[in-house]
Amino acid sequence: MAFTAIFSTVFLFVFSFANSISTVNTRFPASIYSNEWKSQSLSIANKLYQTKYFTQTLDHFNYNPQSYQTFQQRYLINDVNWRGPAENSPIFIYAGSEGDIEWITQNNGFIFETASYFGALVVFIEHRFYGKSIPFGGKEEANKNASTFGYLSSTQALADYATLIIDLKKNLSAQGSPVVVFGGSYGGMLAAWFRLKYPHVAIGALASSAPILNFEGITSPYSFNDIITRDFKSESESCYRVIKGSWKLIDDSAKQPGGLEELRKSFKICENYISANYLERWLRTAYVNTAMMDYPTPSNVLNPLPAYPVKQMCRAIDEATAAGDTFKGLYGAANIYYNYTGNATCFDLKHESVQFGIDGWRWQACTEMILLTNGNTDESIFPPSMYNYSNQAKYCEDMFGIKPRPIWITTEFGGHNISSVLKRFGSNIIFFNGLRDPWSGGGVLKSISKSVVAIVAREGAHHVDLRFSSEEDPEWLQRVRRKEIKIITRWLKQYYNDMANL
Amino acid sequence: MAFTAIFSTVFLFVFSFANSISTVNTRFPASIYSNEWKSQSLSIANKLYQTKYFTQTLDHFNYNPQSYQTFQQRYLINDVNWRGPAENSPIFIYAGSEGDIEWITQNNGFIFETASYFGALVVFIEHRFYGKSIPFGGKEEANKNASTFGYLSSTQALADYATLIIDLKKNLSAQGSPVVVFGGSYGGMLAAWFRLKYPHVAIGALASSAPILNFEGITSPYSFNDIITRDFKSESESCYRVIKGSWKLIDDSAKQPGGLEELRKSFKICENYISANYLERWLRTAYVNTAMMDYPTPSNVLNPLPAYPVKQMCRAIDEATAAGDTFKGLYGAANIYYNYTGNATCFDLKHESVQFGIDGWRWQACTEMILLTNGNTDESIFPPSMYNYSNQAKYCEDMFGIKPRPIWITTEFGGHNISSVLKRFGSNIIFFNGLRDPWSGGGVLKSISKSVVAIVAREGAHHVDLRFSSEEDPEWLQRVRRKEIKIITRWLKQYYNDMANL
Repeated sequence: MAFTAIFSTVFLFVFSFANSISTVNTRFPASIYSNEWKSQSLSIANKLYQTKYFTQTLDHFNYNPQSYQTFQQRYLINDVNWRGPAENSPIFIYAGSEGDIEWITQNNGFIFETASYFGALVVFIEHRFYGKSIPFGGKEEANKNASTFGYLSSTQALADYATLIIDLKKNLSAQGSPVVVFGGSYGGMLAAWFRLKYPHVAIGALASSAPILNFEGITSPYSFNDIITRDFKSESESCYRVIKGSWKLIDDSAKQPGGLEELRKSFKICENYISANYLERWLRTAYVNTAMMDYPTPSNVLNPLPAYPVKQMCRAIDEATAAGDTFKGLYGAANIYYNYTGNATCFDLKHESVQFGIDGWRWQACTEMILLTNGNTDESIFPPSMYNYSNQAKYCEDMFGIKPRPIWITTEFGGHNISSVLKRFGSNIIFFNGLRDPWSGGGVLKSISKSVVAIVAREGAHHVDLRFSSEEDPEWLQRVRRKEIKIITRWLKQYYNDMANL
Repeated sequence: MAFTAIFSTVFLFVFSFANSISTVNTRFPASIYSNEWKSQSLSIANKLYQTKYFTQTLDHFNYNPQSYQTFQQRYLINDVNWRGPAENSPIFIYAGSEGDIEWITQNNGFIFETASYFGALVVFIEHRFYGKSIPFGGKEEANKNASTFGYLSSTQALADYATLIIDLKKNLSAQGSPVVVFGGSYGGMLAAWFRLKYPHVAIGALASSAPILNFEGITSPYSFNDIITRDFKSESESCYRVIKGSWKLIDDSAKQPGGLEELRKSFKICENYISANYLERWLRTAYVNTAMMDYPTPSNVLNPLPAYPVKQMCRAIDEATAAGDTFKGLYGAANIYYNYTGNATCFDLKHESVQFGIDGWRWQACTEMILLTNGNTDESIFPPSMYNYSNQAKYCEDMFGIKPRPIWITTEFGGHNISSVLKRFGSNIIFFNGLRDPWSGGGVLKSISKSVVAIVAREGAHHVDLRFSSEEDPEWLQRVRRKEIKIITRWLKQYYNDMANL
């Protein structure tokens, strides 16, 4: 019964066109530390960025002839607000994650918004094997098999970023400009790890919704679905109970004569393949992704969503079930995720809800990104299940012919006893997490030292802080951003002080 | 005229059988912090270590099928003094460098000597591609060409160490045991970098004579030979002048009819090839290596040497030149390095004075270890010369068919502005340097923070602190070791305190 989908909990980007990009230039005066940063409209003259390419080395850690091959790595640069090398003005880097960097850029307006305040250069770097930064001449070649795909790894990506940043600073004669690195989700992990591994390149990192502890059992594999359960429960206990009961209801219906046809009609499935398993996966994807994107304002990450979409889903469920039609309620909830614009007339279950960069991420999830998230307790909104690593390993071997390295990430980047390690080593990292985000269970939720700090927003979802600001943003979100700005300002002050005194 | 040898300044190990290994067990009481550590005879029951092997991954940073190949990595382990996992007793790791680990073990008795004081497990890990830790089934295959040699790199070696240590601790149920990593020369660089990159694996590092700043022009390329010059000058100004003038003298002699035959006789060269160039390289190697190994007690690194060998060389030169025979003086100096035992009757100039691990190091020096040391100022004891990178790059392309990556080490590990970077990031590193060591110019000579400290010994040579102690050790050397022990004790105390309080 039910789904055993392993890869349905991919990372997602916060991706929003909902907030307009103003062309008003609100450039702050040079005394960047004298005024408190406020949410503001974006000061971009005409466009958000210029597109450039960097000739990148295929393998940084190996010297065999193939490692010397190169590829063109895309980066997007905005120097409209930069006060330049003469003032050693900062450089803000976004560590691209598993997707097209233009898409990611739209998603992370916060960084552009802060540029005028800080007089910063903003650079979004695309992650290798995503978007247009594809080795071996193109996606077909690059993703062909493990021999080419093998060069897609987090360590290579971090080394790409270091190499590109150092070269960029040299070309701009901006060696004195401090670099701050930003990232969300997998990009947040990369940002945190970049500060830890390349402290000589970045003076600090804002790692938003970075589940760096979701490896090797540091975080419980039940945590992810526990949080989704809590999200729905927090809106309405009855909503939670309806969803929790629905899996058996669907299974039972599917077994009745004509039951699948009934389900097809109830959920407006187009005339193609349907099974209870597919339908349940489709529903689960809607709940999971909506929980991640349970933002206080409308968003458009993969699909357009209203503000507080979990609440909306539960409203649909509660209203319909009160009227005695559970399937109508579930359909209404799914409709919020899959069809908020109302354009769809029927749904294709086989259609992947997450299309972007999925090939690359599947590879990463089969090699090193062994994120343990698929356990479900008896209380879960999803059917109870154990996290099963051997299933995952088998899937990966079948798909790519290689074995995962499930302990590599903690070997390379740590995670166990992170408080005692980072209490005595490292500095200048902000870990932001919103507790409504299912990934928050794998995040750093307590400050570790004066300068390795956790910012936690009870009401927040998946890297909500990095989104474009909006006038409708609630006070708690404005407060989070102000706090982040304040901390980054402190890092920069310290850097400039050190520069003057050393 | 004269030599342009690029690879004559290889790293060297301190390798001494001169100090006997006592079998008296002087195990300290459990209260390891109550007594000050003192130089002591070594408490090894019968032998220094057991030999073990670990199945290591060929490439940690890549997931193509070849990367999954494995090799047997050798490590040497001594648990005689270990108080074990129940007490969370420490684990002392020696980060093997470019040579056979058994050879290196003999060289670094200090670590064995401290084991009883700390109740520590001692593990020496062999560096990939050296000794018996050879991938691809054997040296011939492994060193065949860039396709196999390509897997020899510092980053892979560090990842090997992390992987092995984590596995070892798991197998010993010693996850709570703090790890301190030690290393000298290239191994010292690895030790420092290991602490910086793997703070979750090692709580601190003693990096002895680690020229981590000898890259990309951070340290002047003239520094290395300047220090050798200073070493000889400090013994006797006339000795320096004789050596400085000798290169022209040899060149001139070689041009005379019968001049080469004369030189052959003067320097007791066996009946094989001789040229001024070869003779000069041979002499230079003697001066360089003797400067590195200018220890206060007899040593036997590559050749047996007396205590204070530079002084001995200068004495030979000064005595003979006072009597009017310069070549006799130069011969006497060379004889101290090449023939202190007096067994040799003639010398083979083509015979490499450094045979150990040279293949591997040549590869490393052609890929990432682009140590800039070969410049000579007008004041140099060697003929003036510019450091010439393009010569080196051409040599590497001719030899291995690959281009060096001269900025990789600073990209990956930093080095520029190291004080400002490590002042705000990182902890628990000791950088030891002896100022008579030509490599000391590329070392960290000033303490950076409370816990990133430099220990500098004016009278010290190449990682002298790591050698077996001896009753003849001068007070300054005893002081250095006591200081190191004290600092490591502090790290451990802090670790145990944190463990109790977190």
